Amino acid sequence: MTAELEKTERTSISRHAERGSYDREAAYAILDEGMIAHVGLDAGSGVMVIPMTYARLGDDLILHGAVASRWLSSFKEGRPVSVCVTLLDGLVLAQSAFSHSMNYRSVVVFGDARLIEDDEQKQAAFKALLEQLVPGRWEDSRQPDRKETDATTVLALPIKEASVKVRSGPPQDAAKDLELPYWTGVIPLELTAGEAIPDPAMKDERAVPEYVSTFSVKR
Amino acid sequence: MTAELEKTERTSISRHAERGSYDREAAYAILDEGMIAHVGLDAGSGVMVIPMTYARLGDDLILHGAVASRWLSSFKEGRPVSVCVTLLDGLVLAQSAFSHSMNYRSVVVFGDARLIEDDEQKQAAFKALLEQLVPGRWEDSRQPDRKETDATTVLALPIKEASVKVRSGPPQDAAKDLELPYWTGVIPLELTAGEAIPDPAMKDERAVPEYVSTFSVKR
Repeated sequence: MTAELEKTERTSISRHAERGSYDREAAYAILDEGMIAHVGLDAGSGVMVIPMTYARLGDDLILHGAVASRWLSSFKEGRPVSVCVTLLDGLVLAQSAFSHSMNYRSVVVFGDARLIEDDEQKQAAFKALLEQLVPGRWEDSRQPDRKETDATTVLALPIKEASVKVRSGPPQDAAKDLELPYWTGVIPLELTAGEAIPDPAMKDERAVPEYVSTFSVKR
Repeated sequence: MTAELEKTERTSISRHAERGSYDREAAYAILDEGMIAHVGLDAGSGVMVIPMTYARLGDDLILHGAVASRWLSSFKEGRPVSVCVTLLDGLVLAQSAFSHSMNYRSVVVFGDARLIEDDEQKQAAFKALLEQLVPGRWEDSRQPDRKETDATTVLALPIKEASVKVRSGPPQDAAKDLELPYWTGVIPLELTAGEAIPDPAMKDERAVPEYVSTFSVKR
């Protein structure tokens, strides 16, 4: 794979171009930290955007859903899909309302997803989907059986036609606004994990696994 | 406005219908806590999903962008748009890989956005956009001038054809899987604010406003 992502009409960044890049490594760092993707698809009655878990597996984004899902199955028809992963880093308070902003890191990927039907590839995708959320969990859970595997549609979207957008740092007020008297700065935002809550359905006392007690959203 | 949102082919929830609702009050609680929306639109070269700030203003979702934005301006052509706001609440660790899930609250809205051109309505939208992120900030910043107002496209999407989806609580393993030996439970997730970072561009020492020092993502 090339180090640069593909710049096309769809991925070209026209607004705040200084925030954009086509750097594959930067895209992967964002995709690897994220836990949820917003997936857009025209399933025939207009665009729909749905939140989904996902995984990055090599140079693909993996998506999955129930075979019975009307929405997901429309992928199979070769309709292009757009996937966006966004991490929020802060609220940017400027002198002017107009210059307020957010600090964030986002990746948008476009393209045609392909159906993963091979059993071994499907298991690798299931593993990636779980490990994306909780590294260490795959080996510490019951892996999918025949029925579960067959009931699940797995799609792979090549991370090729994609772009990265990042804003960080303090506000950028126009010079004239710096004479104004307001407090300006950044309120940092972070997705954080709390203490794990044991499932009341467990049949006995069980120690919290280390990968759970040390879990962190930041990887 | 009716208490129930509009159930159509696009908003009907086919998977995990037990998680879905059409309750306007539940939708507003989620929309009021959120800070970012993922907006899907077919701008002519396929669906694009983009993260945007937004506001709920009465029974509308407000979106905005630069007049010069190629993407946003395609809204004006009456193309339907889909907006999704998702709040992550936890990772759900079940006995089977298949039953792993996330706790979340999400709202999806569809429809045709209308352009807000009236000056007074535009200012109300700017205020709502800022107050959605940092309540108290509008009165403590320079409000948009003529040039800034004219350079900004503001759209209102009626919250009408919409649905809510919520998952909460412990894992739901199949009865046979409850005999398995794995630890199961929930890792709670929360978007949290850190201590505010003052802008080095401020011309003198300024006290952190109370609405900043007491800022909380949870409203």
